[in-house]
Amino acid sequence: MDIATIIGIVGSAVLILGSILLGSSLGAFINLPGLLIVVGGTIMATLIMQKMPVVMGAAKVAMNAIFDKMEAPDNIIKQIVSLAGKARKGGVLALENETIENDFLARGVRMAVDGIDPQEIINTLRIETDSLLLRHETGHKVFKFMGATAPAMGMIGTLIGLVQMLQTLSDPSAIGPSMAVALLTTFYGAVMAFVIFNPIAEKLEDRTKNEEMLLEIIINGIDGIARGTNQMILEDKLISYLSPKHRKKEE
Amino acid sequence: MDIATIIGIVGSAVLILGSILLGSSLGAFINLPGLLIVVGGTIMATLIMQKMPVVMGAAKVAMNAIFDKMEAPDNIIKQIVSLAGKARKGGVLALENETIENDFLARGVRMAVDGIDPQEIINTLRIETDSLLLRHETGHKVFKFMGATAPAMGMIGTLIGLVQMLQTLSDPSAIGPSMAVALLTTFYGAVMAFVIFNPIAEKLEDRTKNEEMLLEIIINGIDGIARGTNQMILEDKLISYLSPKHRKKEE
Amino acid sequence: MDIATIIGIVGSAVLILGSILLGSSLGAFINLPGLLIVVGGTIMATLIMQKMPVVMGAAKVAMNAIFDKMEAPDNIIKQIVSLAGKARKGGVLALENETIENDFLARGVRMAVDGIDPQEIINTLRIETDSLLLRHETGHKVFKFMGATAPAMGMIGTLIGLVQMLQTLSDPSAIGPSMAVALLTTFYGAVMAFVIFNPIAEKLEDRTKNEEMLLEIIINGIDGIARGTNQMILEDKLISYLSPKHRKKEE
Amino acid sequence: MDIATIIGIVGSAVLILGSILLGSSLGAFINLPGLLIVVGGTIMATLIMQKMPVVMGAAKVAMNAIFDKMEAPDNIIKQIVSLAGKARKGGVLALENETIENDFLARGVRMAVDGIDPQEIINTLRIETDSLLLRHETGHKVFKFMGATAPAMGMIGTLIGLVQMLQTLSDPSAIGPSMAVALLTTFYGAVMAFVIFNPIAEKLEDRTKNEEMLLEIIINGIDGIARGTNQMILEDKLISYLSPKHRKKEE
Amino acid sequence: MDIATIIGIVGSAVLILGSILLGSSLGAFINLPGLLIVVGGTIMATLIMQKMPVVMGAAKVAMNAIFDKMEAPDNIIKQIVSLAGKARKGGVLALENETIENDFLARGVRMAVDGIDPQEIINTLRIETDSLLLRHETGHKVFKFMGATAPAMGMIGTLIGLVQMLQTLSDPSAIGPSMAVALLTTFYGAVMAFVIFNPIAEKLEDRTKNEEMLLEIIINGIDGIARGTNQMILEDKLISYLSPKHRKKEE
Repeated sequence: MDIATIIGIVGSAVLILGSILLGSSLGAFINLPGLLIVVGGTIMATLIMQKMPVVMGAAKVAMNAIFDKMEAPDNIIKQIVSLAGKARKGGVLALENETIENDFLARGVRMAVDGIDPQEIINTLRIETDSLLLRHETGHKVFKFMGATAPAMGMIGTLIGLVQMLQTLSDPSAIGPSMAVALLTTFYGAVMAFVIFNPIAEKLEDRTKNEEMLLEIIINGIDGIARGTNQMILEDKLISYLSPKHRKKEE
Repeated sequence: MDIATIIGIVGSAVLILGSILLGSSLGAFINLPGLLIVVGGTIMATLIMQKMPVVMGAAKVAMNAIFDKMEAPDNIIKQIVSLAGKARKGGVLALENETIENDFLARGVRMAVDGIDPQEIINTLRIETDSLLLRHETGHKVFKFMGATAPAMGMIGTLIGLVQMLQTLSDPSAIGPSMAVALLTTFYGAVMAFVIFNPIAEKLEDRTKNEEMLLEIIINGIDGIARGTNQMILEDKLISYLSPKHRKKEE
Repeated sequence: MDIATIIGIVGSAVLILGSILLGSSLGAFINLPGLLIVVGGTIMATLIMQKMPVVMGAAKVAMNAIFDKMEAPDNIIKQIVSLAGKARKGGVLALENETIENDFLARGVRMAVDGIDPQEIINTLRIETDSLLLRHETGHKVFKFMGATAPAMGMIGTLIGLVQMLQTLSDPSAIGPSMAVALLTTFYGAVMAFVIFNPIAEKLEDRTKNEEMLLEIIINGIDGIARGTNQMILEDKLISYLSPKHRKKEE
Repeated sequence: MDIATIIGIVGSAVLILGSILLGSSLGAFINLPGLLIVVGGTIMATLIMQKMPVVMGAAKVAMNAIFDKMEAPDNIIKQIVSLAGKARKGGVLALENETIENDFLARGVRMAVDGIDPQEIINTLRIETDSLLLRHETGHKVFKFMGATAPAMGMIGTLIGLVQMLQTLSDPSAIGPSMAVALLTTFYGAVMAFVIFNPIAEKLEDRTKNEEMLLEIIINGIDGIARGTNQMILEDKLISYLSPKHRKKEE
Repeated sequence: MDIATIIGIVGSAVLILGSILLGSSLGAFINLPGLLIVVGGTIMATLIMQKMPVVMGAAKVAMNAIFDKMEAPDNIIKQIVSLAGKARKGGVLALENETIENDFLARGVRMAVDGIDPQEIINTLRIETDSLLLRHETGHKVFKFMGATAPAMGMIGTLIGLVQMLQTLSDPSAIGPSMAVALLTTFYGAVMAFVIFNPIAEKLEDRTKNEEMLLEIIINGIDGIARGTNQMILEDKLISYLSPKHRKKEE
């Protein structure tokens, strides 16, 4: 579980609530119809933009991004190097009964064991990489869209409030509170976009980049295994993906 | 028909109307000249930007995106694998009398049957893919343009109202209602852009990406058929385009 | 002549003028110094950004985009296929006395007749395509720049008006009309950008994409002619550039 | 010297000054502390962003862009074609004592004379092109950054003025003039960005594109000279970089 | 240490503080809760977006960008050319005991000494380059995100203040000071974004580009060394990366 995300969400909430409570009661910032138009409107616009299962899936993707640990690249490299060593000693067929946890690596090894041409294996794995990235990009785009739509819904809510307030300008003492309520939807939209949707969209994009690197490592590793590359040379190549700091642990 | 889009459009309308009716009558939000300048102005600016048939076509494209189901990639793969099996047994000529529903796949198979060089078939199909994507991008751009233009037209309408109000500032009691009317066009522009044009533009872009993947699958499939690839290996390659979840159904 | 552009420009003018006349006289919206700073300022900033002949050329390019019909791709394809047929029968030299209207196609055919190596012809034509696209992109960028500068000039004009109004706040009855005049430049800038410059910039970009496709068709056609490709196969390849609807007319 | 840029800068100044003087004295628009925070703040932020010599260099680059004439592509082509003619007659060694003004062309010819492999010459010249473009892009980015920072500094100045004005709201007659002064920094920032930095940034970008084309012409020319291409064919290829209008002058 | 960055940060602080002190005491611009929500909120949103060690690392990266001098490309070139000279005389094995400070260059030379195939060395070094750039891009994105989030947090703080002020509009004399306090968070957000985060983000991006060039030089150098290229030709190629001004010093 990614502790930073939890700290960030809890911390933001504490800061915003604290900031409110310093100057007024929390009640002054709660407006159910306003909350409904911003949250509901953002969800509705997202449903127009994407198929139902994709929107549902996006929530799951976000949860994964927050709670799942990505496999460490150095572990994968260790495993690939060990597989490459066995393959050089006993041929790729020696890998037939290896238990490999990572699905993508396992699939590549199985293809090598089946005797499929290395170039063809790479082509197939690259298709799999591309379509995985496309699926992830879809999830990332849903959050980016929500981050752009929430403030707009906030503005629409505020415009509704302003128009209604301006049409009944006769009672000057009501202007302040009406205006305050009208501004609440802008506030909701900004908080949703900048505290929730945008950071998560960035997180998903960053995670996709890291996943892409992991898949690149595996593709290069499978290529080495299938071609029977010397395991020392293969390790030397694969650790180039790591930062020098992580690399030292390796050796 | 894509139920999510319908839910999204109806839901947005209900939320916005509900939000209005909580505070005033709907009549306060209806201003025909304002509606005319925002809707009409957006359409006019779009006509400057694009040829008439393209703008007309864009509406049709949007309808398709909402109401048409795209062919499922797993069905296409199933069909390609079955064609590849027949081609391996009886040669590509055995595919001469196959009924193939998908136009793009049908064209590729016909070229293979005609004995055209596989590389040349791929080149031709890739041209077709590129020009299809170009046509779709045009439709997508029309909606993106409308999404950027509608709020601007709203602002132009509000500026007209503000200037007129400010010039006759003598009667203070008229300020509020005049200002309210002036803000309505901004409201119309925001609703049109963020509830209709932008989500549809995103939907069209997403759909184009999925269609591109479908065409990539078919191109790879035709290549396999024309080269007489083993159907098991071909299937293994093509299902890489699917998410693992959809893949399981396949096997 | 592109009727849609004319309809769009006239229609926008009617809508905006109508919208003004519903609430006040047109005179209230005419402010010559304001018009001068927005129109003049935009032109001056554009002169800083680009050489004189390019800015002058941009106006001509815009006129072309509005009044010139682009050659229909299906006519070009028909012509190429017919040339390919003659070249296959009588050799490329048979094309020596053909009258070819399209300059780009004519140049390619002449090079083929001169016996220049097909690959070298393609290289030369591709250079020509790239430099044509670069020139068009320059025109497109001028309009995009004007679309971004006009609202800024409008804002500068409004700021000047606001500062002057605020410094002489003693007479409250003058606030309204002064403010109205100050807002006029923002209005001018918005109308110029969103009704004229931005749509034309988009139109030029779209036109460039279509022209690029036309040149791609011709390059592929010249390649086929120079290599003596069968005219049926060549046609099959070239019509892939057309939408299926236009393709049917072809056969 | 690029007359358009001078006209643009002088013209903008005249328009803005004229617009001010129509409504008030110029003095009302001069506020030294405000000018200091916008101009100084923009320069300081730019120093954070870039090393001292790069910022200093950027001013020189801008001056070059305004006052230096770029070499005309048609002259360079004429020169290359003449060199190619001599090289075909007397071998590349015949070019040993040619005086070539353009540094880039001179370097390529010297390498050809030294008998370096044509492909290696191209590689070296392409590195030089890329690093030249990188250096130019740096200058362009400095101006783009200044164009984005100046309005922000204007806003910061206005916020400072607003906060100070609001804290001493007791004297209503002082509100107007204080507000006017506060708005001046926004005015300065907008003028600096939209009349100076942004147009120059665009000019530099455009110039870089033209320079890139010039270098492409020279690289293609050197390639032709080193390989001993026929000078007619080489000219035919190189004039493809020119617009048809300029090409006619050539023949 | 990069003196320009220090001048920029100190200079900005002096300008902003001076601008404040001209009109009021500094105390009027200090609001601890406001500072907390902008600074704290930006950090919290960043923690949602990125893993803890990456955010911590970003601060270190920024310090490096400010205080570390990058290796001068001309020194690296001098060293590579000298190594290439020795390798030509005594074979690559002669480089075995050379002390090379730059890690990247040292690694490449070691691989060449180990007799690894030049193409394979290049592949490995390119992987290392790509993963280094990916890590740097992550740092750059953290600052860009903070530059976009800080003004949003400022706006959220201002909205909270506005809503609270509007709800207690009964005492008109309190409006000014309350509004002033509400605007402070917008001020904080703008200063943080435009004086700190954005310039540093740009600096990191620029630095990455320069580092990429340095790595390109080394990769080309290693390639030359491993292939035994003549050191004069290699130098001629590598100095193409330098601006002509720096090149002269070289010779």
